[in-house]
Amino acid sequence: MSHQIAVIPGDGIGQEVTPAAVEVLETLDIDFEFVEGEAGDYVAEETGEPLPEATADLARDADATLFGAAGEHAADIILPLREIVGSYANVRPAKAYPGLNAVKPETDIVFIRENTQGVYSKIESEIADGVSTLTRVITRDASRKIAEYGFAYAEEHGYENVTIAHKANVMRETDGMFLEAAEDVAAERGADYDTALMDALAMKLVMNPEDYGVIITPNLAGDVLSDLAAGLVGGLGLLPSANIGDDNALFEPVHGSAPDIAGQGIANPSAMILSAAMLLDHLGYDEQSTRVTEAVEAVLADGPHTPDLGGDASTEAFTAAVIDQL
Amino acid sequence: MSHQIAVIPGDGIGQEVTPAAVEVLETLDIDFEFVEGEAGDYVAEETGEPLPEATADLARDADATLFGAAGEHAADIILPLREIVGSYANVRPAKAYPGLNAVKPETDIVFIRENTQGVYSKIESEIADGVSTLTRVITRDASRKIAEYGFAYAEEHGYENVTIAHKANVMRETDGMFLEAAEDVAAERGADYDTALMDALAMKLVMNPEDYGVIITPNLAGDVLSDLAAGLVGGLGLLPSANIGDDNALFEPVHGSAPDIAGQGIANPSAMILSAAMLLDHLGYDEQSTRVTEAVEAVLADGPHTPDLGGDASTEAFTAAVIDQL
Ligand SMILES: CC(C)[C@H](C(=O)O)[C@@H](O)C(=O)O
Ligand SMILES: CC(C)[C@H](C(=O)O)[C@@H](O)C(=O)O
Repeated sequence: MSHQIAVIPGDGIGQEVTPAAVEVLETLDIDFEFVEGEAGDYVAEETGEPLPEATADLARDADATLFGAAGEHAADIILPLREIVGSYANVRPAKAYPGLNAVKPETDIVFIRENTQGVYSKIESEIADGVSTLTRVITRDASRKIAEYGFAYAEEHGYENVTIAHKANVMRETDGMFLEAAEDVAAERGADYDTALMDALAMKLVMNPEDYGVIITPNLAGDVLSDLAAGLVGGLGLLPSANIGDDNALFEPVHGSAPDIAGQGIANPSAMILSAAMLLDHLGYDEQSTRVTEAVEAVLADGPHTPDLGGDASTEAFTAAVIDQL
Repeated sequence: MSHQIAVIPGDGIGQEVTPAAVEVLETLDIDFEFVEGEAGDYVAEETGEPLPEATADLARDADATLFGAAGEHAADIILPLREIVGSYANVRPAKAYPGLNAVKPETDIVFIRENTQGVYSKIESEIADGVSTLTRVITRDASRKIAEYGFAYAEEHGYENVTIAHKANVMRETDGMFLEAAEDVAAERGADYDTALMDALAMKLVMNPEDYGVIITPNLAGDVLSDLAAGLVGGLGLLPSANIGDDNALFEPVHGSAPDIAGQGIANPSAMILSAAMLLDHLGYDEQSTRVTEAVEAVLADGPHTPDLGGDASTEAFTAAVIDQL
């Protein structure tokens, strides 16, 4: 079976780390067809469109998409791309990889963030001079769907603790519906879980991240809490993520385009290669996914290291070392 | 001039720490008249109403209110009380007091949280079976008002860094208006400031809290980020807060009712006494406010300590030690 993979490097270091991930995927014995598309600030400058229709089509028609990084136009690229692949689940592992200078090295949490609703509805306007409103939307179906995904993920990946995050004491109808739907799913599956108010959870994550495994959250709560957890493990630098749809998916590092170091060939490609490992896992290549992840972890542990981790290896040298480990 | 102070101990340890704070205030040479009101789960159980009208009236008519703690009905007590005192600014210092086992001891941040808008609008309903919406409201006036308060606070309290938190890349109209209004205020005052996306800020606060001073935020962002910062300094245990209105204000510890230790006379009254110090500051008794704060800090540094800090002093003994230091 051949898989078509759309590859969108985007801005800045996206142009450097994306080819590295493709190189790693190419060494595996899998029939991938890579098709490259353009998006980013540099495209917007030329054409006025950060995400050209042709690139959107590539992502739409592919089996999965690898996305590198975006700059100023991040929201105008990544939000439409998530919609195009039908992503309902944003999967964000926050794990203290070796080499990261972690605030809390014992952190090993996967955020399962609802990826279509909440304050990302775009139903927003200035309804009168100086008065603006946004309609936050939560449906039972979407809430059930993310909860199903989250509990299944916890089972498949061996996480014992599942926490449902919410702010239903204030957002009684909307997060109330989210919470109730997620608790219904848990009951139907006979699964254990905890619930946590998102504010209290922010505090507890900082103090005792080791108490958490999988965290199922509404959209914005997941956005904020997963970045918090990135801070716990030493920053966005090494963190991969997946945006999962029914028939399509998008994989991207959590980091941005890092304009300060772009173009120098020294970007750390770990997050991007780990995102490619999530792609492998998603397409059913579990064994290869594990091999790639372990290869990255081995190089993070023993070097060579890129400058962000105190070494002087290039992106290329790091990638070659990962391929050597495979 | 005499000041009428409404005192609402509430649930659990609120019943123990609130009298401690009143005792401290009584030793100062200020003409306070304390009037006590009831609220809490225990009142709801008896009467069905967690916040009786008589208590609401007390708070409404007072110059300021001291509130202890709430349990299950927290949202039904604290949100109406904030409304009653006309609170537009929720002031939440997160400072690593001596004795706290802080994750990041260099943290010294004051959150200035907008306290009337955003997702706290209560405009919420299930508009169709399985579909619920909430209307997030942001006005230019309220945004300007919190920004004015925040910049003035930074000036008066000697904080050099002011950060405006937002998520205007997604909530373009609502947080866009918040951000623009706050930036306008900064420009009019000729004040320096930074802006930060709330998700990126969550990460940076965990990694480099020393980079931040005053953070001006929309309502829910402030709720979550201030709890995050509480985690950085070792938990809610010692943190005070103020809810500031035009002619009235409410002061409360950030911690809850702590049912596990309630009734034993061992609760740490620091957060409550520090909240009373914020009350003094607010009413213009700066010198007394500083004295009380320093007295608490001295006892936190040298003991006696309550059990939460590893000692075996009672609430009473701790309070007596604070009064000794005054
Ligand atoms: C760029 C922005 C729209 C996006 C989001 O809010 O989802 C980002 O913060 C993320 O988490 O990928
Ligand atoms: C109890 C709850 C309604 C409240 C809030 O969301 O403001 C609490 O979290 C707080 O921060 O004081």
